[in-house]
Amino acid sequence: MARLFHAPLSPFCRKVRLSLAEKKIECELVEERYWEKDADFLRRNPAGKVPVLRMGERTMSESAAICEYLEEAYPEPALLPKGADKRYEVRRLVSWFDDKFHAEVTSNLLYERVNRKLHGTGYPISSNVKDGAKAIKYHLDYMNWLLEHRRWLAGDTMSLADFAAAAHLSSLDYISDVDWNRSQSVKDWYATIKSRPAFRSILADHVPGFPPPPHYADLDF
Amino acid sequence: MARLFHAPLSPFCRKVRLSLAEKKIECELVEERYWEKDADFLRRNPAGKVPVLRMGERTMSESAAICEYLEEAYPEPALLPKGADKRYEVRRLVSWFDDKFHAEVTSNLLYERVNRKLHGTGYPISSNVKDGAKAIKYHLDYMNWLLEHRRWLAGDTMSLADFAAAAHLSSLDYISDVDWNRSQSVKDWYATIKSRPAFRSILADHVPGFPPPPHYADLDF
Repeated sequence: MARLFHAPLSPFCRKVRLSLAEKKIECELVEERYWEKDADFLRRNPAGKVPVLRMGERTMSESAAICEYLEEAYPEPALLPKGADKRYEVRRLVSWFDDKFHAEVTSNLLYERVNRKLHGTGYPISSNVKDGAKAIKYHLDYMNWLLEHRRWLAGDTMSLADFAAAAHLSSLDYISDVDWNRSQSVKDWYATIKSRPAFRSILADHVPGFPPPPHYADLDF
Repeated sequence: MARLFHAPLSPFCRKVRLSLAEKKIECELVEERYWEKDADFLRRNPAGKVPVLRMGERTMSESAAICEYLEEAYPEPALLPKGADKRYEVRRLVSWFDDKFHAEVTSNLLYERVNRKLHGTGYPISSNVKDGAKAIKYHLDYMNWLLEHRRWLAGDTMSLADFAAAAHLSSLDYISDVDWNRSQSVKDWYATIKSRPAFRSILADHVPGFPPPPHYADLDF
């Protein structure tokens, strides 16, 4: 069976978990305190990050490379559409969320509020939290604009772009940092993706010291 | 003709330039002062970053998505090998350089020494420069280790992984921040890639106020 070394609220791990579950690849989850840079873990991934996916003799890191691998090795159901143009748009949006959204929102909110306490690196820096709270509005508006033109974020079919976005938003929703009233289109999109069987394990996550709000796992939030 | 909005020393732009040139896609280069967030430029790319590639009616951003697009739309010569395992390894290394190397080395050296002056954001922070100078040694050693086991960074054939690495190293070489004496294997690898016709435009780059050292464009460095 595959084994994923992960951290429950890491959006990069959640994106891989969603891909694995959607493709019905059975996988054991192993929580990794990656910030402690344990020697065994560094042997698995010299970059010292999660996710790390073990499949047979293969040990893989870097969430983008892992998701492309899963897409090529387990093509059904497809999370990348056919056609270079459509695939470009999916990959552009995956980078948008994993790069820009991550730097402007996830780092400023989730990492300040949760990771600092978990990793013992001090109190949240309030100017960062404020920047994150401001930036998420702009990103939700961008998603709203996309979803008014498309059924899913990158086009007519659900794709890795939706999983990347849902991975970040679900981690932020765990700490009540998403204003679902800002856009009905975004709320409807999240309700649809949240109700997929692939999302169940994510809704069951629990980080000691940080209980999720009641709406977090509620499909009718 | 394709048109690339770029900044000469940006490793992400250089990676795309190398892919375009290797695939013999003619492309006009337009320098973009992206940090000034000009309205026209933000219309082309709301993320406010370079590279931005215009091809016909298509305007593309995000270097990883652009390179995958070029690979699918212009498959020859291939910069991704065949087989999910080999392709995974290429993509893992592209992320290694664009993520980890970028954060630990390029940001601390190139962005401190050059971008701060160009963008008018103050003097280099010397502790960052020191961290970068330390980190590049570790990365050169990792490349040395890879190249002792493989002909190219990700395997038997030249790939996007080599272009990602060469894009970062060439930008750092422009400011004499690469110790080519540290590893003969890395030096040989760079000499091979540097002598490709695709590299010519990069060796001709010139940033006002920052003249390159004589060895920068020398194929026999």
